[in-house]
Amino acid sequence: MTSASTGSAHNGAASPVYLDHAATTPMLPAAIEAMTAVFGTVGNASSLHGSGRAARRRVEEARESIAANLGARPSEVIFTSGGTESDNLAVKGIYWARRDADSRRRRIFASAVEHHAVLDAVEWLVQHEGAEVTWLPVDDNGAVHPETLRAELAVHADEAALVTIMWANNEVGTIMPIAELAQVARDFDVPIHSDAVQAAAQLSIDFAASGLSAASIAAHKFGGPLGVGALLIGRQVPCVPLLHGGGHERDLRSGTPDTAAVVGMAAALRVTVEDLDSRALHLAGLRDQLIDGVRAVAPDAVLNGPVGDARLPGNAHFTFPGCEGDSLLMLLDAASIECSTGSACTAGVARPSHVLIAMGVEPGAARGSLRFSLGASSTRADIDALMAVLPQVVDRAKAAGLAGAGAKGGR
Amino acid sequence: MTSASTGSAHNGAASPVYLDHAATTPMLPAAIEAMTAVFGTVGNASSLHGSGRAARRRVEEARESIAANLGARPSEVIFTSGGTESDNLAVKGIYWARRDADSRRRRIFASAVEHHAVLDAVEWLVQHEGAEVTWLPVDDNGAVHPETLRAELAVHADEAALVTIMWANNEVGTIMPIAELAQVARDFDVPIHSDAVQAAAQLSIDFAASGLSAASIAAHKFGGPLGVGALLIGRQVPCVPLLHGGGHERDLRSGTPDTAAVVGMAAALRVTVEDLDSRALHLAGLRDQLIDGVRAVAPDAVLNGPVGDARLPGNAHFTFPGCEGDSLLMLLDAASIECSTGSACTAGVARPSHVLIAMGVEPGAARGSLRFSLGASSTRADIDALMAVLPQVVDRAKAAGLAGAGAKGGR
Repeated sequence: MTSASTGSAHNGAASPVYLDHAATTPMLPAAIEAMTAVFGTVGNASSLHGSGRAARRRVEEARESIAANLGARPSEVIFTSGGTESDNLAVKGIYWARRDADSRRRRIFASAVEHHAVLDAVEWLVQHEGAEVTWLPVDDNGAVHPETLRAELAVHADEAALVTIMWANNEVGTIMPIAELAQVARDFDVPIHSDAVQAAAQLSIDFAASGLSAASIAAHKFGGPLGVGALLIGRQVPCVPLLHGGGHERDLRSGTPDTAAVVGMAAALRVTVEDLDSRALHLAGLRDQLIDGVRAVAPDAVLNGPVGDARLPGNAHFTFPGCEGDSLLMLLDAASIECSTGSACTAGVARPSHVLIAMGVEPGAARGSLRFSLGASSTRADIDALMAVLPQVVDRAKAAGLAGAGAKGGR
Repeated sequence: MTSASTGSAHNGAASPVYLDHAATTPMLPAAIEAMTAVFGTVGNASSLHGSGRAARRRVEEARESIAANLGARPSEVIFTSGGTESDNLAVKGIYWARRDADSRRRRIFASAVEHHAVLDAVEWLVQHEGAEVTWLPVDDNGAVHPETLRAELAVHADEAALVTIMWANNEVGTIMPIAELAQVARDFDVPIHSDAVQAAAQLSIDFAASGLSAASIAAHKFGGPLGVGALLIGRQVPCVPLLHGGGHERDLRSGTPDTAAVVGMAAALRVTVEDLDSRALHLAGLRDQLIDGVRAVAPDAVLNGPVGDARLPGNAHFTFPGCEGDSLLMLLDAASIECSTGSACTAGVARPSHVLIAMGVEPGAARGSLRFSLGASSTRADIDALMAVLPQVVDRAKAAGLAGAGAKGGR
């Protein structure tokens, strides 16, 4: 599949160059085929008759395949409606279960750079459910250091409800030292959840080896359908359900299993994991070409986040001094290059990214940021197309930024 | 589409006769076509670039279409992952919002015959969140009388958090006097939610005319995909979100919109509503043939629930004295007839239906029950096939029941 698949959105004009795979990536043909095959069948996986049992078989085969591809046991795979639900279930469910067992355990340790699905869930627990939070600071590259977590847990050991630290950052691509962080949490006997939504598309995930208590994934980030994901969660990890009614998923999540979607997710993950090493190499090569290209045409651009192996292979994130990110995005879009200013989930919100702020970027500068994210269908031609238009886009955005600054009294 | 689509589950044997449309019904071709068209595109509806705006346009067109087909405003349609999430969001969200505004408002008024997605959500609020519940009794046909609700609200007016009463029952097909019930709730200024999951497939839903504060629907009950639904909820109805992170759906529900699924749901609903009157007539005719047929071959069978217009046109539900429902189901399945003992969500649970118990059916008798449910693809041949095997199935189940009763010491 190539980015040509986006062409229909542009009324026959040349297909846009899609550099926003972290927001969502095209479905893999294997996932589409698997889903459409299921669409021609009927059966509720909870029904006892033959069609129901056939649906149940499809769901459980998908669960086994997903588990095998993520180093988890089938019983550790709880199907959900996506990354947001998985994150909410883990954060709220584990918080409630720990607090219910011991009313002192109300403190959540969360990195300052979490996705809003974790961030907003934590803040709701603070506002509504009596939680307290320790926001774990990150270094200039966006990583939480294991010793930071250890120091905080040592101070608050008796109050600890859970730790939640993402596996890889959705904005700047920072890969966290997740096994070391999990070991620290285990040293204090505190459950640790990780939002692995971005990681699962580009990194090898071994849930058992990670030492995590729970991890969230979302199918549409690795070529599966939207609207489906999973929470990997150990059998012994206490968790209160968010959605009640039937207890379909190990009594942790209710709702008729979405047979087609979980089959599509399994198919996409199978392909993703098979090709993982070669794709990671390919993406890292393209990414480095992109980074070199940006630096050549915009020498004052600042790469945010780490370099090399500590960064997701498909992520490049820059601050362009003197520019507004939204202006850059719109000018690039007009030139048929599609990217993002940060998380798609906060697109259109005119405030600087909490991720960049936590990394120490000055708020004014943070607003002039762009994320380019690559995926399975990305090519060298995509990078070349970006480089062909970027110089004039940056020039125009700078001119607009100066005019805007003038209009606002030099701010 | 015919029930032939289930054939693949049976390894080339004759296709089973599918009489379990209330559990899930085959996807309509229009829904499959609409979804597969979206599968070939890319774009997160929250992204600002062209592909993102195209996805947003598809989501909003689906929302407008669904709203128009249900008598709601587009802004009243909150997309969810299905009926269970919609029910949980309404019951928990409205409860929390009402309690937060006035700590006395902790009482939930729920019918005794609700689906487990409501029942279990209410029970969790009682066990975990300080709620109290008044279970509203039903008559022999499974209906809540408006005067019953009025009497309870009059006693507990100051404590009322919300009312939740399903539009039509999933087991016995009872249609509630929902507009009258909503009027009673409005008289006391108490929000009222209705699980309309079964109703939306077979009845005309006019949300505005109903007077409801909120109503749940699920696409897979009317020929759309699994894993997607909606909560219709008035703009002024207070509701705390269940899933935080981005606030994609009117700040009431977060998570990347599932473009393909909502487009598929809109397509299925369009076809369903277009054909509603003729299909309802067709289904009611088949249902009455089924009821007459069962009575002819099993004269002691008891029809549960109302007759005529007070019953969903596609539902027939019987108790077969002296039989175990599971035995009947399995014997029918062996004869390629697929039906249910009750709700699919509690299939395999060996306890009598709470719905039948609430209707006054004796527990021992309740266990000998079967639900036959019809849908768009049902035909006269399906009924004939059932009647061809039902006499011997009932005879065998009775023999097994007698043997079982003997083995258990005559119980």
